[in-house]
Amino acid sequence: MNSDTITFRPIGVVRSPFTDPVGMPIQPGGARGIRGEVEVDPAFAAGLADLEEFSRIILLYAFHRSEGYRLRVVPFLDDCEHGVFATRAPRRPNPIGLSVVRLVGVEGCRLLIEDVDILDGTPLLDIKPYVPSFDAFPDERTGWFGRTVREIPDLRSDDRFAGAGPGECEDRREV
Amino acid sequence: MNSDTITFRPIGVVRSPFTDPVGMPIQPGGARGIRGEVEVDPAFAAGLADLEEFSRIILLYAFHRSEGYRLRVVPFLDDCEHGVFATRAPRRPNPIGLSVVRLVGVEGCRLLIEDVDILDGTPLLDIKPYVPSFDAFPDERTGWFGRTVREIPDLRSDDRFAGAGPGECEDRREV
Repeated sequence: MNSDTITFRPIGVVRSPFTDPVGMPIQPGGARGIRGEVEVDPAFAAGLADLEEFSRIILLYAFHRSEGYRLRVVPFLDDCEHGVFATRAPRRPNPIGLSVVRLVGVEGCRLLIEDVDILDGTPLLDIKPYVPSFDAFPDERTGWFGRTVREIPDLRSDDRFAGAGPGECEDRREV
Repeated sequence: MNSDTITFRPIGVVRSPFTDPVGMPIQPGGARGIRGEVEVDPAFAAGLADLEEFSRIILLYAFHRSEGYRLRVVPFLDDCEHGVFATRAPRRPNPIGLSVVRLVGVEGCRLLIEDVDILDGTPLLDIKPYVPSFDAFPDERTGWFGRTVREIPDLRSDDRFAGAGPGECEDRREV
């Protein structure tokens, strides 16, 4: 199909209390109130104008500790395999992470954020304002997530970010 | 800061009625009911298992017609400049697009989608299941969007995807 590659360059880095993938919360739902920061490269400072008017932002980032992927994974939140695109597992063909975090302040090139489920040192690719009329659909059908999602606040990750290519991690659980 | 580059490879392509950036709807909110398809590379077919259980999906894609960027832009939806990270403009430092679309069917490697605001031929980077408890925050503060977002269904884009690097497009409007 399209074999061209697309290259991005980080615009900053995410700081969080999570220096080890093991023990991280599963999604912002399990990270309520956990604080972190985004350090935006000063070269992009002008692009942050007016961001402080938004109470939530979307962070897109690289799952930099993720290596390889499997097309079928057993998520943290279930006991059976699902296609990787039906999960939020970090080890995916293009390991791009997406988190909707609370924006609590902007201090120059530092964004103070809450509900952080992102590993410390994660390379940031993009920041978008969260706009409910574009992004919020509260009543959607959620497949296998619907059976387990209420358990998220109590769950913590294990070694889901750990390396290992396709086929080497039959027992790994990923969200 | 981090000068490493990160390289991705498309996993498929988005098909839509929009072959020309001019006249496209602004965000899925302006694209209700507009149908399109995602053609996933057959190499990734196994990763689609169970996706049909979800009624909405998140598509991440490359704004492939976007060239260059400006850190301050005048969005379609406003009359004054905002920082690019406080907008959803396609011409951004890392031109990654995000749309939450309705999934109406899965036929092999073809996903039938609705509420499509994506240009035909767009390279797809990732598919994630939309999970309201991770992604839906209906009551957030939306800054300048809050003043104009109700007008979206009637708005169409002009040449927001057109080339031109920083500083060459003072009059261009971007969402």
